[in-house]
Amino acid sequence: MKSQIATIDIEPLRLDEAGLKQLFLEARTHNRWLDRPVHDDVLRELYDIVKLAPTSANSQPMRLVFVKGREAKEKLKLALPPPNVEKTMTAPVTAVVAHDLEFYEQLPRLMPHVDARSWFAHRPTDEIERAAFQGSAMQGAYLILAARALGLDCGPIGGFDHGTVDAAFFPDGKGRSNFLLNLGYGDVSGVYPRLPRLEFDDACRIE
Amino acid sequence: MKSQIATIDIEPLRLDEAGLKQLFLEARTHNRWLDRPVHDDVLRELYDIVKLAPTSANSQPMRLVFVKGREAKEKLKLALPPPNVEKTMTAPVTAVVAHDLEFYEQLPRLMPHVDARSWFAHRPTDEIERAAFQGSAMQGAYLILAARALGLDCGPIGGFDHGTVDAAFFPDGKGRSNFLLNLGYGDVSGVYPRLPRLEFDDACRIE
Repeated sequence: MKSQIATIDIEPLRLDEAGLKQLFLEARTHNRWLDRPVHDDVLRELYDIVKLAPTSANSQPMRLVFVKGREAKEKLKLALPPPNVEKTMTAPVTAVVAHDLEFYEQLPRLMPHVDARSWFAHRPTDEIERAAFQGSAMQGAYLILAARALGLDCGPIGGFDHGTVDAAFFPDGKGRSNFLLNLGYGDVSGVYPRLPRLEFDDACRIE
Repeated sequence: MKSQIATIDIEPLRLDEAGLKQLFLEARTHNRWLDRPVHDDVLRELYDIVKLAPTSANSQPMRLVFVKGREAKEKLKLALPPPNVEKTMTAPVTAVVAHDLEFYEQLPRLMPHVDARSWFAHRPTDEIERAAFQGSAMQGAYLILAARALGLDCGPIGGFDHGTVDAAFFPDGKGRSNFLLNLGYGDVSGVYPRLPRLEFDDACRIE
């Protein structure tokens, strides 16, 4: 006879294998794109998913510019080193993943039950920027996985001139770019072989 | 008669609604935990999923200490302000999400086709730390979503004394903590009401 304990110890709900493959196991960085647009309503749905993932003090410092138009793409091109030009210029959308250096001004709205604004507002500029940079990195990572969840393919780009991007897309001086994210429907013929990963015992320990 | 074009324009594969709910739409930060352990093989599977998500130059700077044992938890406790003590001490596991300040020493193995080590090795310490911090923030965000994908619940913690954690868990001085992540099976009675989010037009634009 089964003990009653067994009825409590149900298996936790796991994403099915197809979902794990889509987000992690078989997802790859893309460099070449099918000739298929990414509609604005997909970008809106994408943000509406991403905004829910957690940030420090609910601060949500990430700001996104979805670069789609020819003129905006040309501004972006000026910041790209040669190896990153073609894949970025041909991507249906390139998201500039950035953070707002005055993100704390939103905290009275985002965390209304405490004076969270005061935790940041009078700190040195470099500490504020570090908090915002952490947040946009985390939210940018959520963005990658949320895009994959919606069937988009991603190509994150770290190599570009940040000053050029910031001047072009945040002329008021309050935005700082973290990374670029090419978005579209990928052409698998442009995917490189997967590079090695650190194993558990290289990167982790249990204490 | 349908045009042949229609056969190309298939709908992109999307995660089903249950999957989107589990990872984003209904997932919440947890503060109270069921009395149910997180087994080491779950932590190993978790890392094996997380390691696949993209990092700049495939650098994978994140290092994880999964704090489970009483002695290690007591070391962690010394770094916690009062509001973060109970939820962290009762969590079955707390992951110290950190980065390796010498992550670039792994690049000959992780990106063997170019001399990626030289992109970092001679840069000023603060620039190396910033690159590692960006990476551990992104990998830590992947960790949150991967944990949810495996049916775990998460409680990220930003408020703690970094110096105390770093001295306790990285005594060789090469690791820097980014954030803490409580992991377990959450007790929904401890979840707070969801806080407001910035809307698309507050945080994004399309150019």
